[in-house]
Amino acid sequence: MDRAEPLIAILSDFGYRDHYAGVMKGAIARIAPRARIIDLTHGIPAQAIAAGALMLAQSWRYFPARTIFLAVVDPGVGTTRLPIAIETRAGARFVGPDNGLLARAAAEAGVRRMVELKSPRFRLADASSTFHGRDIFAPAAAWLACGASIRALGPAIDELTPLVLPEPSVTARRIRGEVLYIDGFGNLITNISASILARLAACFRTKPLSVRINGSAPIKIYRAYGDAPADSSLATVGGFNLLEIAIRDASAARHYRVQAGASVVVTAGRA
Amino acid sequence: MDRAEPLIAILSDFGYRDHYAGVMKGAIARIAPRARIIDLTHGIPAQAIAAGALMLAQSWRYFPARTIFLAVVDPGVGTTRLPIAIETRAGARFVGPDNGLLARAAAEAGVRRMVELKSPRFRLADASSTFHGRDIFAPAAAWLACGASIRALGPAIDELTPLVLPEPSVTARRIRGEVLYIDGFGNLITNISASILARLAACFRTKPLSVRINGSAPIKIYRAYGDAPADSSLATVGGFNLLEIAIRDASAARHYRVQAGASVVVTAGRA
Amino acid sequence: MDRAEPLIAILSDFGYRDHYAGVMKGAIARIAPRARIIDLTHGIPAQAIAAGALMLAQSWRYFPARTIFLAVVDPGVGTTRLPIAIETRAGARFVGPDNGLLARAAAEAGVRRMVELKSPRFRLADASSTFHGRDIFAPAAAWLACGASIRALGPAIDELTPLVLPEPSVTARRIRGEVLYIDGFGNLITNISASILARLAACFRTKPLSVRINGSAPIKIYRAYGDAPADSSLATVGGFNLLEIAIRDASAARHYRVQAGASVVVTAGRA
Repeated sequence: MDRAEPLIAILSDFGYRDHYAGVMKGAIARIAPRARIIDLTHGIPAQAIAAGALMLAQSWRYFPARTIFLAVVDPGVGTTRLPIAIETRAGARFVGPDNGLLARAAAEAGVRRMVELKSPRFRLADASSTFHGRDIFAPAAAWLACGASIRALGPAIDELTPLVLPEPSVTARRIRGEVLYIDGFGNLITNISASILARLAACFRTKPLSVRINGSAPIKIYRAYGDAPADSSLATVGGFNLLEIAIRDASAARHYRVQAGASVVVTAGRA
Repeated sequence: MDRAEPLIAILSDFGYRDHYAGVMKGAIARIAPRARIIDLTHGIPAQAIAAGALMLAQSWRYFPARTIFLAVVDPGVGTTRLPIAIETRAGARFVGPDNGLLARAAAEAGVRRMVELKSPRFRLADASSTFHGRDIFAPAAAWLACGASIRALGPAIDELTPLVLPEPSVTARRIRGEVLYIDGFGNLITNISASILARLAACFRTKPLSVRINGSAPIKIYRAYGDAPADSSLATVGGFNLLEIAIRDASAARHYRVQAGASVVVTAGRA
Repeated sequence: MDRAEPLIAILSDFGYRDHYAGVMKGAIARIAPRARIIDLTHGIPAQAIAAGALMLAQSWRYFPARTIFLAVVDPGVGTTRLPIAIETRAGARFVGPDNGLLARAAAEAGVRRMVELKSPRFRLADASSTFHGRDIFAPAAAWLACGASIRALGPAIDELTPLVLPEPSVTARRIRGEVLYIDGFGNLITNISASILARLAACFRTKPLSVRINGSAPIKIYRAYGDAPADSSLATVGGFNLLEIAIRDASAARHYRVQAGASVVVTAGRA
């Protein structure tokens, strides 16, 4: 049968200045010359495990079912945190450090089997202690792409290090959440999901909801970016089902002078 | 027959910090696992339709004839601007928002057929109103790569929203243009084409032309960057047939403290 | 037989804002639609030949043996420096300007044959004098990927322009080197190799080595980033076998306020 080559999607905090991400791709091609490689992003803020975990969780379902996700945000490289691979019921495979980075995506996709990447056969010979992306993770992803069984990569493990993320606090009258990360447009992605928002809106059928960021004036919630007047602040449920705060044609992060962690409050009415 | 897979080239203002561009690629791979994807650039300044339109116009002819260009610079996402696809006489296909972004490239390639991307069959189910790149444009490009006819994507449209760009004003004695955009080296790309420049030069056969930026001292026009003395200012017709102002081994944008829109004047002689 | 397509890996200083790198990829696909393209990096600091040469030297061996490396950091574009291609005993091929950029990688891989890219058949018709990446280098790489013999690209050349890099000075009691480049994490990559370091360590078996950067307090050398306490300075031999200075979870470049060229001294003991 005429089948497409397996796909490896890479997410890292290696950035684009250096050759680190490129060398990982070379290491993959060396083992799996027919694998297709997609750069999901290498722009995760340095060592920001939570941002990486969220972006991975928001991305995996849009890829082909059997995609292998190679994720490397790894401040603990060379220490006791385990290098792992995960097979899921949805089909996606995840390879990376066991530091919370893979936890949310893997939970969504349904963990079926987890292993520690221990087998020397599937590592680069002379693996360094500082560049596991190249020496351990990329080879594991490449071998999976070549059809290796996940069991061959190492012994099974039972538990995944969880990702600890701030949850919004919800009362009958308001939601208090926070900015999880700021995207390249300066949009503020919050931890307030569409479903939590819908529940509050249902309680206040006649009054529209509004949002405050760091004690700002109330910001109106629109259905779409483009519905807001030019240059005005707006809140909207973004493409990933989370409440976002933005300014049309400008940076909300700059305007409101906020960083990840800033407080976000949703209330009914404009007062 | 042994044919290469169809090629999809992506241009956007999504930047490299986020997963947005990566998720579009996943959405393509899901529909068209054999399509080849090339990142043309995701570094268009945020929501800068004109810069995106120019880069697309300057790029398409260097790609294989049947390349599908997926272009997303889309400040009006979710509003009334139409999502469209264009088939051209030169072979290139263009997919993106009808906001001027595709206009120049499509005109150069010769529009043959244009459609609105309306058919729900060729969209992601549950298309969001904020991320058409993933939900509408990427699927359309992928289905074209799979061999779908452009007619299947939606109803024909007759007119394209034009791109309005500043044209240089030309007299017998001088050209007055402006900086269209500034590239990553700090080079100033102007709206003055080689042919306009040649016409002025023909009138002043004995006197060399020189350039002033924002009232600067005259800058000499060289055949190539490397012909100018080290660290000196120079003007030259760049690889895309437009007059550029640069400084060898430094940033002209920083040196002359200019931004897109700055005035550029070409005159004969050095006075 | 079922063979993977040839691989072209690209390294440049074109950055990610512009379409330059993307257009090179289009030019490759036009000639060699089946070639696989990997972005090694386009983030080399503008016109920094030495940084590009080092990253290429540190990368090539991790790629498949017959990879074609297309490297463009080319401040002298359009001048007398030759466009060249190199075939090596290790299998890797290198295409780029003869300005030192390819010298170290080619020497490591073992030069077998070098040619000037002179044949008009293997250039873009109407090659510009400013964008050899698109007009000369990308086509040459693509033709090699299609199976063209390196001899067909132009006449043989005998000598390569060398790369001149600062070497550390070594005495019985200390090593004095410098920062070669700063990576995207703010880690300081020095010109002090693991083997030079091991020689010094062997002389001082009982005393640990320590590092000073620009006259700083002594910095301890660890086996791995993760072995150092959180937020502390550390030195370690990085993934490419060079001494690096870093701060866990922060930028050493920012903390020590240093740039490429800063002085690095390794001595025994902590005094």
